[in-house]
Amino acid sequence: MATPIKITASELYNELVENFKIKEKIGSVEIKLGDITAKYNGKDAIGDLLQEWLGEWMKSKNYYFRTKVNTQEFPDFLLDTTDDKGLLEIKTFNADATPAFDIANFSSYSKSLLDKPERLDADYLIFSYKMENSELSVVNVWLKKVWEIAGTSGTNPICLQTKDKQPYNIRPIKWFSKRATKNKPFTSKLKFVQAIAKTHVKYSVYTKSYNKNWFKIVSDKYFKNTGVKL
Amino acid sequence: MATPIKITASELYNELVENFKIKEKIGSVEIKLGDITAKYNGKDAIGDLLQEWLGEWMKSKNYYFRTKVNTQEFPDFLLDTTDDKGLLEIKTFNADATPAFDIANFSSYSKSLLDKPERLDADYLIFSYKMENSELSVVNVWLKKVWEIAGTSGTNPICLQTKDKQPYNIRPIKWFSKRATKNKPFTSKLKFVQAIAKTHVKYSVYTKSYNKNWFKIVSDKYFKNTGVKL
Repeated sequence: MATPIKITASELYNELVENFKIKEKIGSVEIKLGDITAKYNGKDAIGDLLQEWLGEWMKSKNYYFRTKVNTQEFPDFLLDTTDDKGLLEIKTFNADATPAFDIANFSSYSKSLLDKPERLDADYLIFSYKMENSELSVVNVWLKKVWEIAGTSGTNPICLQTKDKQPYNIRPIKWFSKRATKNKPFTSKLKFVQAIAKTHVKYSVYTKSYNKNWFKIVSDKYFKNTGVKL
Repeated sequence: MATPIKITASELYNELVENFKIKEKIGSVEIKLGDITAKYNGKDAIGDLLQEWLGEWMKSKNYYFRTKVNTQEFPDFLLDTTDDKGLLEIKTFNADATPAFDIANFSSYSKSLLDKPERLDADYLIFSYKMENSELSVVNVWLKKVWEIAGTSGTNPICLQTKDKQPYNIRPIKWFSKRATKNKPFTSKLKFVQAIAKTHVKYSVYTKSYNKNWFKIVSDKYFKNTGVKL
């Protein structure tokens, strides 16, 4: 077998959208048992299924990629042989609805940036899909950085799902909306990190186990690890 | 096309288990998009998928069945041309775990018995399945009445999932367990209905909108509609 080809996330995006033309393809989800096959018309599990599909597509292209042994861990795919670049997360949502996926669990993500601030540079490949009459299609594909899909909200420094009045998940804003909306994506990585830090202060009771000097630790370590200022 | 064949739930069970030998079949869940196919190794949506599969299998056998226009409504399949018999519900669970499906929402089910007590005679076709290395198999199949999968619990007259201290869903007990367990299935339809009535009393604050004379209304109407005493 030929040596796998190393590609970047944006090469992958171009190949998938411009050359493979994923938005023109038609698909389905099927269950087989014995000699009977049925098509699925629901939306549960489509995110996991599209992720599996992307892995197969990359294999068919002989692209280099790895996945974590624990598939629940960040990120979904690694496009590099080292663990600090080429991080690729896959997100999906129903094209007829507002994006409702979780970007990350708020406290886990906050803690992980203390250790691996280079996670800030991970790429997010996002699919919106339709399932109509058991026919699956990809309506749109985006390649984004986390601060381009996270954003401000009326209630919190960052758009959040809360549970029992505690920060729970970082949720996306409608980054593709052309209308003037209240919630806009952050304009930089720095603004995104600052918004997380402000959220730690707002919810200091719940974040006290890790919020001390959080911004300074993250920005110093980001500079140390990447050679670039936050 | 030949006239569809009317069958009962137990004929369906026999055909599926004894003749089709579903427990010996191997299957998979696949996503296709363009010319790339990937297999799924997760468990989300397997319940919906198996239900779709059963519909296809019944079509392949030319069996008569209908589904409700609103597929969320009870029951999943109707095996008769009338709405008061041949009611078939499909339930599924991971064979490596305890059955964790919802039999029914407690208050909706209680209210529906006031109107259609013949729901008590619905059949439940239950599949336990395994998903290993993207290979799907059906480990066991049961055909049961509701009182044979519902049962007593330590805390309540009937095994219940509660939310905010209110009855939420009727949950199954481990009806197939051979070990002496505390929670046993009810021995009759009557005992099941009595346990629901006792639960109305225990949670009278939350059930007051429908619990007045509930047992008498249900048992009288059951007799009126079926000609049989509860």
